[in-house]
Amino acid sequence: MRILVSNDDGISSKGIYSLAKSLQSLGEVYVVAPENNQSAISHAITMHQPLRAKKIKFFDTDIDAWWVSGTPADCVKLGIETLVKVRPDIVVSGINKGENLGTDVLYSGTVSAAIEGCVFGIPSIAFSYEDFYEEDFTVAGQVALKVTKYAIDKGIPKRTVLNVNIPKCASLEEIKDIKVTKLGIKVYKNNFEERTDPRGNSYYWLTGDLEDLGIQSDTDIDAVKNKYVSLTPINIDMTHYGLLDSVKEWNMKLHE
Amino acid sequence: MRILVSNDDGISSKGIYSLAKSLQSLGEVYVVAPENNQSAISHAITMHQPLRAKKIKFFDTDIDAWWVSGTPADCVKLGIETLVKVRPDIVVSGINKGENLGTDVLYSGTVSAAIEGCVFGIPSIAFSYEDFYEEDFTVAGQVALKVTKYAIDKGIPKRTVLNVNIPKCASLEEIKDIKVTKLGIKVYKNNFEERTDPRGNSYYWLTGDLEDLGIQSDTDIDAVKNKYVSLTPINIDMTHYGLLDSVKEWNMKLHE
Repeated sequence: MRILVSNDDGISSKGIYSLAKSLQSLGEVYVVAPENNQSAISHAITMHQPLRAKKIKFFDTDIDAWWVSGTPADCVKLGIETLVKVRPDIVVSGINKGENLGTDVLYSGTVSAAIEGCVFGIPSIAFSYEDFYEEDFTVAGQVALKVTKYAIDKGIPKRTVLNVNIPKCASLEEIKDIKVTKLGIKVYKNNFEERTDPRGNSYYWLTGDLEDLGIQSDTDIDAVKNKYVSLTPINIDMTHYGLLDSVKEWNMKLHE
Repeated sequence: MRILVSNDDGISSKGIYSLAKSLQSLGEVYVVAPENNQSAISHAITMHQPLRAKKIKFFDTDIDAWWVSGTPADCVKLGIETLVKVRPDIVVSGINKGENLGTDVLYSGTVSAAIEGCVFGIPSIAFSYEDFYEEDFTVAGQVALKVTKYAIDKGIPKRTVLNVNIPKCASLEEIKDIKVTKLGIKVYKNNFEERTDPRGNSYYWLTGDLEDLGIQSDTDIDAVKNKYVSLTPINIDMTHYGLLDSVKEWNMKLHE
């Protein structure tokens, strides 16, 4: 089993260290991850600049590891096609510092690394940890190992990514269990704080308050809040199949 | 009708000019678009730097227009919440120089601008033009006006974006009609070209050859190839609902 590990927090983050170490018990691990923090970079790819890559010593391990001067999707592309000389059997991304729940998946570099693996036809999983300030990913690493084992054993369907969120916890025992969920909805308001620079010009910081949308049953948001690991199958085909027929009934004509 | 127009090619591109001009016949148009080209930036948002914005004269028009020093999703967020003092009734993105078909939507800044409008609960459409080298978007602008009229008239369902691709053409008559489609699949191989810099170090340019996957019936790719405008409803909820039950049957247990 060859496992390609990436993330969006950057190659020197604690989360990717814990993930790569944990997965070593399943096979040969390769790490290809961004040189710098790429949070909220989504599925961006680098087209107008060339990429650099460098093989490095990965913490205290002997894992083959490279940083790439680009995005998570760049890392997975370059890892699969150029850096790692063997095709991975699975791509695993994370463990992200901070949750990627509901609407977050649209912005997440962590999830996009896994989606890029899936675009290559390789089963892929993204892991995120609820605590944005945590530096200890030991328990999250144990969860990631357990879930990855299930995924390998059962087989991730084609064109599907598993998005996994792990609740904040001090020990594995604090987590109740694993729930299969749908994505919830997150809406932010008051997203920008306007400031004035020393030369009198305005600038804007992204911030934002989460709107309280009440309980969203069966969602990843609700599961993690209640101390469950959430696992959501993500469809990389974004066609809204349920609407195809009704939009066809609009009966659009270009030449009328 | 208040129409917010954005794009990913940048505020000085011909495509956004044609789009904004065409849509003026439907109501009040506002333009908020990136200062610089943001192609393939996907749904990235700027968290670690502040944003600048500046009101400018938009070509030969009197349209209220701002550039933003960020991504398409930043533009739509900042436009709705801060720059434009009224809430738009519709967000329209494009017209992109180059198609956004099938798997492209994962990487597209054009589509992500529309998705961001949809996250705000505003009906949203993305327009792209098949010709990457074209500088004349007059016909594409006519198509965009026609499709936007239909969308306003029929109503875009919640949490749905319309992704519209316009085939390369010299006149409107060359385009056969509008087809409602699903997204096709695009797979690239040999994505990177390795070069050596004057100091002997490797670097990599993203390139890539499209694999021939044969005819993909009922897809946007096939429609545009056959000179139809493709219109694909996109679901911003990426949950793979069709797999929820089968993944639940994996019967995962954290504590066994």
